[in-house]
Amino acid sequence: MNKIYLDHAATTPMDSEVINTVNKYMEDYYGNPSSIYQTGQKANNKLNEARETVAKLINAQDFREIIFTSGGTESDNLAIKGTALARKKQGKHIITTKIEHHAVLHTCEYLEKHHNFDVTYLDVDKKGFVKLADLKEALREETTLVSIMTANNEIGTIQPIKEIGDFLKDKDVYFHTDAVQAIGQMKINVQDMNIDLLSASAHKIHGPKGVGMLYIKKGTKLVPQMNGGAQERNRRAGTENVPGIMGFKKAVELVMENRKELVEKNTYLRDKLIKGIENNIEEAVLNGPRGSKRLSNNVSFCFKYIEGESILLNLDMQGIAASSGSACTSGSLDPSHVLLAIGHSKGTAHGSLRLSLGKDNTEEEIDFVLEKLPGIIQRIRDMSPLYNKE
Amino acid sequence: MNKIYLDHAATTPMDSEVINTVNKYMEDYYGNPSSIYQTGQKANNKLNEARETVAKLINAQDFREIIFTSGGTESDNLAIKGTALARKKQGKHIITTKIEHHAVLHTCEYLEKHHNFDVTYLDVDKKGFVKLADLKEALREETTLVSIMTANNEIGTIQPIKEIGDFLKDKDVYFHTDAVQAIGQMKINVQDMNIDLLSASAHKIHGPKGVGMLYIKKGTKLVPQMNGGAQERNRRAGTENVPGIMGFKKAVELVMENRKELVEKNTYLRDKLIKGIENNIEEAVLNGPRGSKRLSNNVSFCFKYIEGESILLNLDMQGIAASSGSACTSGSLDPSHVLLAIGHSKGTAHGSLRLSLGKDNTEEEIDFVLEKLPGIIQRIRDMSPLYNKE
Repeated sequence: MNKIYLDHAATTPMDSEVINTVNKYMEDYYGNPSSIYQTGQKANNKLNEARETVAKLINAQDFREIIFTSGGTESDNLAIKGTALARKKQGKHIITTKIEHHAVLHTCEYLEKHHNFDVTYLDVDKKGFVKLADLKEALREETTLVSIMTANNEIGTIQPIKEIGDFLKDKDVYFHTDAVQAIGQMKINVQDMNIDLLSASAHKIHGPKGVGMLYIKKGTKLVPQMNGGAQERNRRAGTENVPGIMGFKKAVELVMENRKELVEKNTYLRDKLIKGIENNIEEAVLNGPRGSKRLSNNVSFCFKYIEGESILLNLDMQGIAASSGSACTSGSLDPSHVLLAIGHSKGTAHGSLRLSLGKDNTEEEIDFVLEKLPGIIQRIRDMSPLYNKE
Repeated sequence: MNKIYLDHAATTPMDSEVINTVNKYMEDYYGNPSSIYQTGQKANNKLNEARETVAKLINAQDFREIIFTSGGTESDNLAIKGTALARKKQGKHIITTKIEHHAVLHTCEYLEKHHNFDVTYLDVDKKGFVKLADLKEALREETTLVSIMTANNEIGTIQPIKEIGDFLKDKDVYFHTDAVQAIGQMKINVQDMNIDLLSASAHKIHGPKGVGMLYIKKGTKLVPQMNGGAQERNRRAGTENVPGIMGFKKAVELVMENRKELVEKNTYLRDKLIKGIENNIEEAVLNGPRGSKRLSNNVSFCFKYIEGESILLNLDMQGIAASSGSACTSGSLDPSHVLLAIGHSKGTAHGSLRLSLGKDNTEEEIDFVLEKLPGIIQRIRDMSPLYNKE
């Protein structure tokens, strides 16, 4: 049975060029970048080359604005806790949204619980968009940080980041965006968008797991959250994962080379999937918007009367890997906070399915999914006590 | 010119078997371990196998007591902040030592600054040993955590961990030990030594960079420091670095197979180096103890009247990679806090050299170092205004 992987929002297979790069650096660049002998300095120079590449991807002004972390979660934690604590005397109010990744939401909760911060969780509309008017209304004199994701991991909604950045530009409020899902799918220009902090992760763009980055605009005050050595210009302690970082660099290069084509292909397959599901399965509700404000690789539906987990297990039996909500919450029985935030009932939210495309998916695979899915949904509904067959 | 690598305390070259393992898992196990389909569950099962292996290395009772992190620094941060904050209502006093790694010291300072903790930094004797009597005297009713490293990274002193564990056993105080340097060099039994939390890192034992572990004894209360998804049983959020963790597993297996032999070989080369330096270089002061209470791979000296950095650059020109103090502080001009703590003046502390052995070092390499080093020291001294040539 051929495997069809449609969970690229959870993680992506590593590109063979990335694997080769990691391999090369595991073999040849073992020196500790903090050491002053050649083996160490050689590794350190490579780290700076990687910073240059990542800076280019998001149009950062200076490669020193890029630091490497262990992943998107650490970057979100550092951005939010780091800046909030650095300016806590100035104010303890943070604004975020109800549909952020848990790496943002739980970090905000940590600040509420352990540092007496006050956090406003903005509502979103039925398609998952934050309204600028709500942000304006929530802003207070004590607000020091706004954290709004570039694009949602579950339903693919792309937020009006430039508008938000423009609004915050002349205010003494830091603007952080979690771009983990967005970075491989769309152009982000931190200068043009007035972003102060941006989180990204390598393993969502065919890079290695265990590597992420945080863009920290020059001049941004930040208290390190990983305390220890003087690495990353005193902003993140711990020996740098040189092979992983160089794999990230290679993955970023591939994104820059191939993104335009990838987005075109993904958009076509995405819309074919959406149309095919809507035409062939009744009571299927598309989550998130249509068109260019939706991530090109995201398809998310709620199928009424049934459980997402049953869909996944049935798809898995056909060799199709997909997800219900996000991978990071899959251990939990709670319905997705994102689906509740866009107005679904708990019951409907439980019947969700996310199919997220990647560079190796083919039209034949999409056709196969469209051939199998309606039968799967029908079989599960036939067994569901909630489903009225008349 | 052949390269001689004598900085294994900073980082180690990856073992070829480890590289092959990481490679295999980069190719074949890309699934997100939190996903419920087969590709994800396959990866998750592998993570648990890695936990079993690491648990065996330190004789943990249960593989679920092992969580994976991004390295030793993160493990130290999580152990200390995590347990301190979990029991802050019970008391805000921590005891540690003046010679801990900065990942411990700066973490304690973070708790002092941001959470009003009170930290006692125990003195050590001239060989770097903590005295149990000092610990007993420092203990208060509000003490909730004692953090004492298993063995020192700069001078190799192995602390009386079992005695400390025995003393703390019937007290309501957690005992954390940073075993980053020790784990590849000596047997550690967390149950026998009454250790509640133990940090270790893969890249110090020929494993990959960017991977570490924290042993958390069952029942230990801990507030996660990386907030987000439900990974690692809700104690450390972030998608698991499966290939890196499997490389760590392989490195641990190699330690278990080869440690006895390695320690014998290292001890012989270590003592040859120490004797050779003492016999051929005047005013060379060995830092740390001799014999079995010293890490088998650590040689550390202070050479009076000169700067460690000059020694390193001269050794580098001969192809010899070594370190002065520790790699994590090499960007700093401050003298080593460890060398000051054992009683050196700032001047003497500046003239330090650490040579740390690894499994691939040969006797020929040690002979070469012993042939070159006296001339290097003499030349630098001849140029030093502090050195009285008469």
